[in-house]
Amino acid sequence: MTLVIDNIAELVTNAPDLGERPLGIVENASVVVEDGQVIAIGPAGALADERLDADGRCVLPGFVDSHTHLVFAGERAEEFTRRMAGEPYDGDGIRITTEATRAAGRKALRASLDRRLVEAHRAGTTTVEIKSGYGLSVESEALATSLAAEVTTETTFLGAHVVPDEYRGRADEYTELVCGPMLDAVRPHVRWVDVFCETGAFDVDQSRAVLEAGRRAGLGLRLHANQLDHGPGVGLGVEMGCASIDHCTYLSDDDLEMLASSDTVATFLPAADFSTRQPYPDARRAIDAGVRVAIASNCNPGSSYTTSISFCIALAVRDMGMTIDEAIAAVTTGGAAALRRKDVGRLAPGGPAHLTILDAPSRHHLAYRPGVPLIWRTIGSDYQLPPTANTSQPIPR
Amino acid sequence: MTLVIDNIAELVTNAPDLGERPLGIVENASVVVEDGQVIAIGPAGALADERLDADGRCVLPGFVDSHTHLVFAGERAEEFTRRMAGEPYDGDGIRITTEATRAAGRKALRASLDRRLVEAHRAGTTTVEIKSGYGLSVESEALATSLAAEVTTETTFLGAHVVPDEYRGRADEYTELVCGPMLDAVRPHVRWVDVFCETGAFDVDQSRAVLEAGRRAGLGLRLHANQLDHGPGVGLGVEMGCASIDHCTYLSDDDLEMLASSDTVATFLPAADFSTRQPYPDARRAIDAGVRVAIASNCNPGSSYTTSISFCIALAVRDMGMTIDEAIAAVTTGGAAALRRKDVGRLAPGGPAHLTILDAPSRHHLAYRPGVPLIWRTIGSDYQLPPTANTSQPIPR
Repeated sequence: MTLVIDNIAELVTNAPDLGERPLGIVENASVVVEDGQVIAIGPAGALADERLDADGRCVLPGFVDSHTHLVFAGERAEEFTRRMAGEPYDGDGIRITTEATRAAGRKALRASLDRRLVEAHRAGTTTVEIKSGYGLSVESEALATSLAAEVTTETTFLGAHVVPDEYRGRADEYTELVCGPMLDAVRPHVRWVDVFCETGAFDVDQSRAVLEAGRRAGLGLRLHANQLDHGPGVGLGVEMGCASIDHCTYLSDDDLEMLASSDTVATFLPAADFSTRQPYPDARRAIDAGVRVAIASNCNPGSSYTTSISFCIALAVRDMGMTIDEAIAAVTTGGAAALRRKDVGRLAPGGPAHLTILDAPSRHHLAYRPGVPLIWRTIGSDYQLPPTANTSQPIPR
Repeated sequence: MTLVIDNIAELVTNAPDLGERPLGIVENASVVVEDGQVIAIGPAGALADERLDADGRCVLPGFVDSHTHLVFAGERAEEFTRRMAGEPYDGDGIRITTEATRAAGRKALRASLDRRLVEAHRAGTTTVEIKSGYGLSVESEALATSLAAEVTTETTFLGAHVVPDEYRGRADEYTELVCGPMLDAVRPHVRWVDVFCETGAFDVDQSRAVLEAGRRAGLGLRLHANQLDHGPGVGLGVEMGCASIDHCTYLSDDDLEMLASSDTVATFLPAADFSTRQPYPDARRAIDAGVRVAIASNCNPGSSYTTSISFCIALAVRDMGMTIDEAIAAVTTGGAAALRRKDVGRLAPGGPAHLTILDAPSRHHLAYRPGVPLIWRTIGSDYQLPPTANTSQPIPR
């Protein structure tokens, strides 16, 4: 099966040898796809089985959303409204979702996960990382991670999200559970381990214990840190060789220096800063310091209930000092680096045909037209969509 | 033809006698529609010709977008990108759009207008005001207003948007053209006159002359003012009895007092503040001072290229100190008041069946899920959509 996508006004490849730097942009391009792989960037052959006329639109590599919490039950819209009325955000609402998630069965959790994946695909995301962290018991974390593993290989164990109610005041004991029986139970399902290193969640010693246990179990390492204030998380994450430290809303000069001299990615989650009314991270300063950055949705029912990478891009350009090209790199190659992946986030012969087609002639529109659903079609993904999802439906013009 | 929409989890009517104040919310509701009118809010009769199962979704009055500039040609994505890189916004780019608009023919202008109306309808808008202001010559303003009048009754003459290049340094002379031959030419097509009273556009005397000429011609009055700084616009607008003063990013205590003791609406345009990196207006302070407020998209190719009222609501709640209920009122009854309309912006027996159905169970989601295309269906409108628009297509769940 050969598919040719032609009449592309602007093609972002992220392959510097294919087009204009830094994003490897090719104008008036075609992409030839065979069996889910890009086989050529260039003029269409005459023998394609199928042709998709991009009609002057812009094509980008599918977005790599390297930080989501898509397995959960319940919602927290009214907590959001109370927070917007002035109630502070302290992460405590995670417990509400934990209750709902524990009470939901496998079937309901999978159905809601599937709905969110369809929504993410329509938002242009073709690679998605999924964390547990709303089970917080051996059984419930095992269920969450096994559900995530049914749909993606980028699965993360976040038993150390917060200390659940039944361990209140006994965080060390809960940490032992996470590092022992809980890790054993989730181990078959996950690629990564993660921990929320923040006042009110896990301190630096507990966080180190979780990362060390994950490493012993053969998992890659990730970290939530510096969301609500400065803290020791970045130092820990760099020292342990985490692939990514996520949030990084507060970064000291020392943090920047440590990040810049490491291969740890700083992943910003601006939609969470939007929805918790935190300040936005100063991405300009981080990039200028030489830090490798990514942007992800952090889709979760408490602090960032969005799958919209376009929205994150618009915030990054308006409020984080990033250029549109830096923001696009952050949600493609940046997200891939945060997952230590080289295959996704770019479009080049031999790579997977994961593409996002905008209903717009250039990438600038992702920031220029905020709030407008600009994703015309999303093609391909390395996660499993429900068989009934109609993902190829175009927006009528 | 009777249509019943049932299984509505939350119905916002804006009719305080129908449900819980302030938004007149009815839970577990049905709406019965006959020939485009709401004939009942309540249990469905057995004899409906058609039934739409809202399946636990939230239904709102269609949004009233009281400030747009939908008639234009060209785009200014790269100017946007330059501005985000630090170039100041001074309104000068309006001249770029004027050139493109003058060069486009009636057919191309109408086709792009139609595309934007389809986009606005998919974004939940059922009443739309459309301004001219990118023609800035007698012939071109007449064309723009006649195109607007083909699709809506809420048409506004904004010949006094900026002084065009050929009148540079001769603003008084251009004002005379606006108040004389240009007004005569557009008069058959418009309901409203508007002027941009701001440093760099029109001063208070020129603005007064335009409003007075419009009033003599029988038009309703509107004003752009206080977008970029404090100024005399609010005083002028209130004195002249404008239906609405739009932008109001900068409001002094005197401005607030004048507005509060008038029936002039202050219309905020937060997407413009987003896209020009202006501060957001302090809507909390205005509401607390007793000012009647609206929110509109200001859709235009320079300072706010969005049709998304949902995006405006999310900004209002996050950054303007408004509650979700105040923001929803501002885009429904507020927008209606800004157009001196009582028929739209609410859902009650005898009124038009203009509804927005969210793919969400409650209105909170409009701010809680930023960037997510939440509009499941939009029903009805008092503007003309192109006959080929498929406006009833649901988002698959």
